[in-house]
Amino acid sequence: MRIKDINKQEAIIEATVLLVNEIGFVSSSVSKIAKKANVSPATIYIYYENKEDLLVSTYVEIKKKMSKALLKNLDNSEPIRDVLQNFWKNGFQFVQENQSLYQYSEQFANSPYSELVNRAELEKYFEPFMQVLQRGIEQKVIKNVPFDILATFLFYPIMIMSNQKMCRALELNEEVIETGFLLAWDAIKL
Amino acid sequence: MRIKDINKQEAIIEATVLLVNEIGFVSSSVSKIAKKANVSPATIYIYYENKEDLLVSTYVEIKKKMSKALLKNLDNSEPIRDVLQNFWKNGFQFVQENQSLYQYSEQFANSPYSELVNRAELEKYFEPFMQVLQRGIEQKVIKNVPFDILATFLFYPIMIMSNQKMCRALELNEEVIETGFLLAWDAIKL
Repeated sequence: MRIKDINKQEAIIEATVLLVNEIGFVSSSVSKIAKKANVSPATIYIYYENKEDLLVSTYVEIKKKMSKALLKNLDNSEPIRDVLQNFWKNGFQFVQENQSLYQYSEQFANSPYSELVNRAELEKYFEPFMQVLQRGIEQKVIKNVPFDILATFLFYPIMIMSNQKMCRALELNEEVIETGFLLAWDAIKL
Repeated sequence: MRIKDINKQEAIIEATVLLVNEIGFVSSSVSKIAKKANVSPATIYIYYENKEDLLVSTYVEIKKKMSKALLKNLDNSEPIRDVLQNFWKNGFQFVQENQSLYQYSEQFANSPYSELVNRAELEKYFEPFMQVLQRGIEQKVIKNVPFDILATFLFYPIMIMSNQKMCRALELNEEVIETGFLLAWDAIKL
């Protein structure tokens, strides 16, 4: 029974992502999402209060998956630079393998719905990254500047370089991803 | 007559920005924009073929203004670092003084309409920035990497740091803007 529930919930999330990417936030209704997920609208209302709750929960779920993917092969005994390069590579891999999730989250972050996100919950997922950067600052390896500035040069560039509207002329091969990390590291290292 | 026309066209662009920021791209119609600009829909069709043309032209107009603002006080006899720091400061000033234009362009860039932009026209406005970076590469002051990667660490961070959804905890004062430039410069310098 539990497995079935998780499957249903995953199907709902997947349908939400696909439909919103197709027709946008405004036109996506709970009934259309239910149809796409092959469940009844009543089933959706078991898990989510309303359309807003479903859209926001989908975004939070994507961020959770993304942070989990970035932490793959994390080895805190490695030098800070290697730990960060591992985040960097994992980030590009996640975006490349999850284009539809990435597209949804970009749209969502620029929509008015993003105001409804529980920030504390979201920050929980990014706690491990802040801890590594904090450790780097304490070891005098990373510049002692606000976390948002470090993220601007270490995490957001993954999104920008992966965004074909922003980096039109860039072919994302291994060399380009490594070059990008050289710049990111030079930016944040002390 | 000519002055009047320019005023009308500016009023139309301004109304487009305000209405789209208010109610989004889908709900913004030519007739609603005309009402907000205090002109007849027929007047809009003198200048623009249709809604798409109006939305795209508004975006291109904003990018033109933005590039012009960034070039303020450009002095190519100065060291590359100073020229780039000047772009950086001008960029933050533009975003701070033109929040509604910035909001429109962020939304537009993430919308399907962005596919309709004439890229060659847009790139024309960014030619002067590419020239400065090219000069820096030739002088062995800037890393010899693709322009898109340099832009990721020099121009996009202005947008990210100015975006309160992305950098929630960041108060954009002079010190933070200068610190940001230190990281941008370290990223791209050879």
